[in-house]
Formats: sequence, C-alpha cells, structure tokens
Amino acid sequence: MKRYLALAEGYSGDDHYGKTTYGVIRYGTDPVVVVLDSARAGQTVGGVPVVASVADALAYEPTTALVGVAVAGGRLPPVWRGILLDAIEAGLDVEAGMHEFLADDPELSALARERGVELRDYRRPPADLSVSTGENLQHGAAVVLTVGSDCAVGKKTVAVELDRAARERGLRSVFVPTGQTGIMIAGWGIAVDAVVSDFLAGAGERLVVEGAKRGDLLFVEGQGAIVHPQFSGVTLGLYHGAAPHLLVLVHRAGDTEIEGSPGNPIPPLPELVDLYERLALPARPARVAAVALNTGRLEEDAAREAVAATALATGLPTDDPVRFGPDRLLDAVLERLPSGITRR
Amino acid sequence: MKRYLALAEGYSGDDHYGKTTYGVIRYGTDPVVVVLDSARAGQTVGGVPVVASVADALAYEPTTALVGVAVAGGRLPPVWRGILLDAIEAGLDVEAGMHEFLADDPELSALARERGVELRDYRRPPADLSVSTGENLQHGAAVVLTVGSDCAVGKKTVAVELDRAARERGLRSVFVPTGQTGIMIAGWGIAVDAVVSDFLAGAGERLVVEGAKRGDLLFVEGQGAIVHPQFSGVTLGLYHGAAPHLLVLVHRAGDTEIEGSPGNPIPPLPELVDLYERLALPARPARVAAVALNTGRLEEDAAREAVAATALATGLPTDDPVRFGPDRLLDAVLERLPSGITRR
Repeated sequence: MKRYLALAEGYSGDDHYGKTTYGVIRYGTDPVVVVLDSARAGQTVGGVPVVASVADALAYEPTTALVGVAVAGGRLPPVWRGILLDAIEAGLDVEAGMHEFLADDPELSALARERGVELRDYRRPPADLSVSTGENLQHGAAVVLTVGSDCAVGKKTVAVELDRAARERGLRSVFVPTGQTGIMIAGWGIAVDAVVSDFLAGAGERLVVEGAKRGDLLFVEGQGAIVHPQFSGVTLGLYHGAAPHLLVLVHRAGDTEIEGSPGNPIPPLPELVDLYERLALPARPARVAAVALNTGRLEEDAAREAVAATALATGLPTDDPVRFGPDRLLDAVLERLPSGITRR
Repeated sequence: MKRYLALAEGYSGDDHYGKTTYGVIRYGTDPVVVVLDSARAGQTVGGVPVVASVADALAYEPTTALVGVAVAGGRLPPVWRGILLDAIEAGLDVEAGMHEFLADDPELSALARERGVELRDYRRPPADLSVSTGENLQHGAAVVLTVGSDCAVGKKTVAVELDRAARERGLRSVFVPTGQTGIMIAGWGIAVDAVVSDFLAGAGERLVVEGAKRGDLLFVEGQGAIVHPQFSGVTLGLYHGAAPHLLVLVHRAGDTEIEGSPGNPIPPLPELVDLYERLALPARPARVAAVALNTGRLEEDAAREAVAATALATGLPTDDPVRFGPDRLLDAVLERLPSGITRR
C-alpha cells in the first residue's frame, strides 16, 4: 500500500488550487499520511498533519510524494523544483497530474534513475487516442455526467459521492475519472484536458466505453463549465464524447461570477440548465436530473435555505450531497433514467 | 518561391477530405503546379494537372510536396508512406498538417537528413502555450469569427474571401488561420485542434492578439460546429478564446444532418444562430452578422433561391461569397460592428 506525502506548498489552506490534496485525502484508496506546506506547518488539513519540508515529512514514513496542487496551466512555480528533488533524493516515488511531465524533465528523471524511484504522470494521455467513432451510443451502461457553473465547485466530489452511494445500494456503479485528481483517487482514467483538442470527444467516448466494461451505471466527472472563458471547450468536448443520458448540475451556493473572470457572471441556474440541455446531441438527448449545491461556505441554516431556494428556482431536486448525504440526489437520478435503460 | 506538388492520393476529387489541396490551389501564396492522385492521373483539379506518381510529377519542377488531404484523426493511411519516401528521395521538402508529425517519424526524418530536405509540420503547436489570460478582451482590433453548421462547409474560405475583399477596400484586414490549410495559405497561425485541450482558448487568444498586431479587422477561421459530436469542443474553445465581436454563420445549402453522424440533424438555422449567440461570453457578447451560404452543389437558379430563402428564414443578410462575391456579406459585417469599435 502507498502512503502519500501530499505536496501542497502554498496551497494547503486552499480547496481550489489545493483541490488534489483535498480530493485524495477525502476519497483516495491509499492514505495521505502527511502534507507539506512550509507556511502552515503544525496545522492540519482534513485531519492530516502539515509539515514544512520533505525532511520533516519522513517521520511519517511516506512511500510516495504526490503533487497535490492544480495550478492553472498545469505548470509549477520554480520553488517546487527543490521540493521535488528533495522527495526523489529521499527515495520517494513521485506522482503528478501536470501538463509538464515529471518524466520529461532531464534533472528530475536523472535523479529518479539514480535513486531508483518512479515518476508517474497521470495527465499523460494514451498514445493511441483519436476522434470519437459513435461507440459512445452503443454500449449498455447508463451514463450520468456532472456539469458545473464554474471550475472547482465539486463536480468530481459529486460524482464520487453518487457512485459510492449507488454501490452501497448494491448497484454496479462506476466512478469515471476525467482529471488528474480523479485518476489518483480511482487508479484509472484520462485527464481529458491534456489530450489533443481534436480527440476530446474521443477521450470522453473511450472513458464511457471502458466504464461500461466495469459496470452498468457510470458517474462521469465533469470538467470546467460551458460558460467558462478558459475551459468551456473541454466541457463541451467531454459532454459530447461521454454522451450522457442524464446530467447533475453542480453549483456553489452564492457564486455569481466565474472565479477570476470579471465581467462573466454565472447565468441564473434555470438558464444554465436550459443551456446544458440544449447542447445535448440529438442522438443522445440529456436532461438535468438534479442540482448538487455546494454549501461548504455557509452555516447549516443558510445551507438548508439555499437548497430550498435552489429547488424552487430550478424546479429540480436539490441537495448538498457532502453535507446532507447523496441519497436524495441519487434517488432523483435513478427515477429519471430514461425508459429503455435498464435499472439494474 | 515554392512550387507545390500537392499529394492527394485517393482524394483529389473530394473537396471534403481533399480540402487542403483545394484550399492551397485556390488561395495559397505559392502555386500548386501538379497534384498526385494515381486513380485520376490525366485529369485536373482547379486547373492543375493530376499525375500518378512522384516520378511523373517531377516534370513540373516542384520544390515542395504538400500533404493535401485532411483525414479524420490526422493520421495517414499506410499507402502514403511510400509516396512520402518517394518525395523525399526526389529531393523535395515536405509540408504537412497532420496530428502525427513527419519530423517525429524515424524513417522519414532519417531519409530527409540524408537527402538534405526539410520536413515542416504545420500542426505542431507552439511549445509555450497556456490558458487564456483575458488579453483577448484588451487588444484594439475588431474580431469576426466564422462559425459553421458542420465541418468542411467553407468557414476558412469565407474568412479568406471577406479578408481579401476588406483589403481591396483599403482596410487593414487580416485573415487569422486556425487550421493546417489556413496556415499553409497564410504562412502563420496555430492549428487549434492540435493543442492540449486546456490551452484551446489560450491558442484562440494568442491568435487574435497576434492578429491585432498585424491589422485592425480580423477574420478568424472557425473550426467544426457547436453541434458536431466529434469537434464541438474545439469550436467552443476557439470561440471563447478568440472572443469575437461578430460571427458569420457558414452553412452548405441543403445539408440537414451532420456529415457522417446519423441521428444528429443540423438544427434549423435560426436555432443555430440563437445557440451561437447564447454561447458568447457576457464579457464579449457576439451577434451573427450574416449567413454565408455554400451553394456549390446547386445550379445557379437554385442557388439564388436558396440564398433568398435563408435570408427570409434567418432575417439576416445572406449570400454565397464564392459564387456571388463577398461584398454583400462584408457590408453586413462592417455595418454591424458594435459601436465603440473603430471602423478604420
């Protein structure tokens, strides 16, 4: 079993850019035993102690260092080079989901060879990807895609929670990872934002075809948002490639503007629901089955009010699956699976 | 000056998959002096003679062989290897816009070194691309993007025609290439379908920022279609990255379904106009200024009727800029540039 040192320098207190650390601590198969972030040493993240350096981390006996941040552009700040070299020098394998691959870095890979450790790049796409072929319409599984009002609002978390609840009910459910953190959690998948654009839908298709071999009900991790100025292309390519039967819209309560993008408001949720539904391909119409509301920034009472208000505004079943449990959303999904899809 | 041998084996009679050959013959700066397609030797393409082999082509004194087909997935059928080796052996430089790069092929690159010829891969993305930054909203140029109802309906051609007409009127207009054929025509650009998906909008942004250094009015070549099951991600990423002020919708008269995609009808054009306009980012609203109707498959009378019917159905200025000249569409674009953008 791996024991992770999550490298979160500068971001261990930030569930946006540090979301890989948070995701693997919460949902990963292998435990995160220690987190590195020099400014927050002595504190904890999700119950895991934070230390200042790789040297300090070794007391927790990690086997593997994990790049636990997701910075825009997927390239690390220069300060990270020293941390990675320290980890390799200490004999740890290193795993990352960046656009710049660890194994392609001459200095890192030379030291890794010398120390006999592995560098694993989870964002490296399969070499044989191509355009989609229509297989996404031919497998036998039911496909549910989480879609968002912005990046980093909880699309992966909602897919993971719904999958877990479905398996607890005895369904042959599968979480389908489409980004680096999801891949680290589940141990398979494709980081669709790292593939050649022409092959985006091809990557989405391959993931659901693979998922359909693993189970009957697929919860596909969505990416970005259709209204996101930087990542909308990934959102739409994955949507059309995954060809879902149902969507679950994920929104953070209170958010009104795309983060970091002044002048780009998030449309009212009923409009966003309509836009996502209109963009479904005629060959595979998709409806929004429910709204997953991320109320993590609200107090309990305000969270309940926000859930009720969102349900009223959208006319859709709404809940926060992390705070209040995923059962209500899962019920909504299962009830709305189009006829003709087996409910196994 | 280069003299091109266009390699179009199997596709010289096909303006879809052979569209690179057609585009460079029609609009390229350097002349295509001969076309290779063994099944059609003795015929002509756009006035250019077709021959059966590289050996036969040499009589026309080409300097450079051009891969003149655009096959889905960007990978060539095996029969092409012999043709490419023949061209290199004959001392010709070779240019291509495939996803598989000529220069990365050990056999081709070894022979190219031996023969002292160059291999140029126009689809290779810049190494330093990243996510978009907002610069697409800050330059001073007016941006017009062609968008389509399908692939291979004429988005590049319409952008080239409008740009040429604008320059003839003395405007500082620029054609902004976003695909391999456009790059071969104009000598610069980025094949946005070959970039890492996360950087799609970043590539669109870089192209308009670069275009704004070259002129005041940019006609950006669109890609794919928002309703295309394989390439919609590229379409939307380019759209949001280029951040156009106006759109020109390109449609082939009579088309009712996405080519090669049974069950995916093209929406009625007024719906498609609405969908493209709704997908504009709030920070840069975009309206469809006109419809460019590709009537290439119709007789003259039917073409005029189709133009009139489309204008009536959409309420938008409509014309076939190739058949009837680009002036009417250019007028529509110039009239509809939002106030605040200088009409230079």
